[in-house]
Amino acid sequence: MQTRGRKEVNMAGPNVYSVLVTGSNRGIGLELVKHFVRKPNPPDVIFATCRDPAGAQAEELKKMASKHSKVIMLQLEATDPASVEAAAKKAEAHLKGSGLNLLINNAGVMPQSTLASATPDDMMSVYNTNVVGPLLVTQAFLPLLKKAAQGSSHKPLSCSKAALINMSTILGSMEKTPETYSWFPVVSYRCSKAALNMLTKCQSLEYKQDGILCTAIHPGWVKTDLGGSEADLTVDESVNGIMKVLCNLSEKHHGILLNWEGKTVPW
Amino acid sequence: MQTRGRKEVNMAGPNVYSVLVTGSNRGIGLELVKHFVRKPNPPDVIFATCRDPAGAQAEELKKMASKHSKVIMLQLEATDPASVEAAAKKAEAHLKGSGLNLLINNAGVMPQSTLASATPDDMMSVYNTNVVGPLLVTQAFLPLLKKAAQGSSHKPLSCSKAALINMSTILGSMEKTPETYSWFPVVSYRCSKAALNMLTKCQSLEYKQDGILCTAIHPGWVKTDLGGSEADLTVDESVNGIMKVLCNLSEKHHGILLNWEGKTVPW
Ligand SMILES: NC(=O)c1ccc[n+]([C@@H]2O[C@H](COP(=O)([O-])OP(=O)(O)OC[C@H]3O[C@@H](n4cnc5c(N)ncnc54)[C@H](OP(=O)(O)O)[C@@H]3O)[C@@H](O)[C@H]2O)c1
Ligand SMILES: NC(=O)c1ccc[n+]([C@@H]2O[C@H](COP(=O)([O-])OP(=O)(O)OC[C@H]3O[C@@H](n4cnc5c(N)ncnc54)[C@H](OP(=O)(O)O)[C@@H]3O)[C@@H](O)[C@H]2O)c1
Repeated sequence: MQTRGRKEVNMAGPNVYSVLVTGSNRGIGLELVKHFVRKPNPPDVIFATCRDPAGAQAEELKKMASKHSKVIMLQLEATDPASVEAAAKKAEAHLKGSGLNLLINNAGVMPQSTLASATPDDMMSVYNTNVVGPLLVTQAFLPLLKKAAQGSSHKPLSCSKAALINMSTILGSMEKTPETYSWFPVVSYRCSKAALNMLTKCQSLEYKQDGILCTAIHPGWVKTDLGGSEADLTVDESVNGIMKVLCNLSEKHHGILLNWEGKTVPW
Repeated sequence: MQTRGRKEVNMAGPNVYSVLVTGSNRGIGLELVKHFVRKPNPPDVIFATCRDPAGAQAEELKKMASKHSKVIMLQLEATDPASVEAAAKKAEAHLKGSGLNLLINNAGVMPQSTLASATPDDMMSVYNTNVVGPLLVTQAFLPLLKKAAQGSSHKPLSCSKAALINMSTILGSMEKTPETYSWFPVVSYRCSKAALNMLTKCQSLEYKQDGILCTAIHPGWVKTDLGGSEADLTVDESVNGIMKVLCNLSEKHHGILLNWEGKTVPW
């Protein structure tokens, strides 16, 4: 019975007390928040962060937050240290002494760019959002992740203890580039995500001693503003998979890149 | 006899008509220029570029240029599109209708930085020099590389035909990070060089059709301002190795990372 019960919980996603998602007003981020809310064992606190909580692009999220008291909207512009710091302070106050179990660095951008068309501005701004953002957000929330890990220091690495997830992509994989390059050159994006993979690797080596699981996830090719309407997966299909992956994460997934089906993607 | 002759030439470095090295006023870049000058079959034109040709840091290079007419000093700040464009225009004029055989993106910076200490400024400026720089320089010199390749379109990929070398590092290798991280966290540098590896991979896929060989090279841990005095290799040892690697480069080295001894480093 216990095993069955645990399995059902697993299928529905990880059993976490608190989670934070960046870029959660649309796309995969919004869908993650929806799936967390819908879980049979939802987190007590779901920090749904976005750049402009008052804006038109946050309407759906706002409605959800007004219906579900566990959804806490926070302003967070991932490239702005002051915004990130302020969000961390608010989250800390809200958690009233508890830690943050799960931080999902989901916010990202993918402008079209080729080797011929890429400009310094394009390269720099994509790097800022896709790499510097996750670095800053993790720096700011690290004390809360550590607190969560310390609260269950006897447990092995898992999302219900303390975990950092960076939303990466197969397009950042060196090994897979020959297979995908001609379809999606997106050079500024690829370079940024290869760097994000390196950041994830460094974080996995640095934060292991703190009991924080660090994993990069490729959500598949998903129908969002970023992925476009031709993509393979609906956001629901992708996030369904991601929720299962999250709940099964353990030490053996520390410092690697997994796809939405839980398969390892080579670097 | 012919074979022996060819072998001797090989040992001394690739047989190229023209080469350009960025960041050639000190460190590995300066040593590359010295080795090219000293070759039994030196290039006709060695574009030795640096940020401040009139500055104190360029004294040694200036002396070399005044002694050897094949050494042409050009101002080139890799992060400044106007400077890069101006250098490409001057190089084109100097080449009088010929192409550029070998472009070495060597300029780079490595500030100390950890996950805790890395700042947006650090992350962005390292990325600008180590990734955006090589992108811009390659964009600007691409027509000259293509011209060189077209001039010997019957030949297989090689440095004497047309080649793009990006100076990378083992610290940008995802696979090798667990072995090296605790010694050299240098997070902003690692992220930038992982991105440079991705740039190299994209360039190799894009420019193969143009007959341009694209390879990333890890020069070893070298005693320079960047590498420090504790490093394993003198610049002479490292560049000796690199010259041999360059002359042996062929299609099978296209789109990979090689160390100064010609061994493949995994991504
Ligand atoms: N869709 C795919 O096929 C696919 C494939 C592989 C990986 N991914 C990755 O999955 C993640 C989510 O992608 P998506 O498809 O859901 O994209 P999306 O629909 O375009 O949504 C992107 C989200 O990121 C936010 N964002 C962008 N820049 C931000 C910043 N500086 N600070 C805070 N938030 C910011 C956006 O907020 P605003 O509304 O304010 O712009 C939005 O909420 C990205 O990291 C992406 O690289 C997606
Ligand atoms: N040394 C090592 O152990 C080692 C190991 C692996 C990889 N590498 C790589 O090898 C390359 C050369 O390193 P090194 O050891 O010779 O370094 P170095 O002695 O510090 O020299 C760096 C060179 O790059 C130039 N430079 C820096 N920023 C530039 C910019 N924006 N535009 C143009 N030039 C710029 C410097 O010019 P200024 O004099 O004007 O600053 C200098 O000429 C780098 O890409 C480095 O990452 C070195």
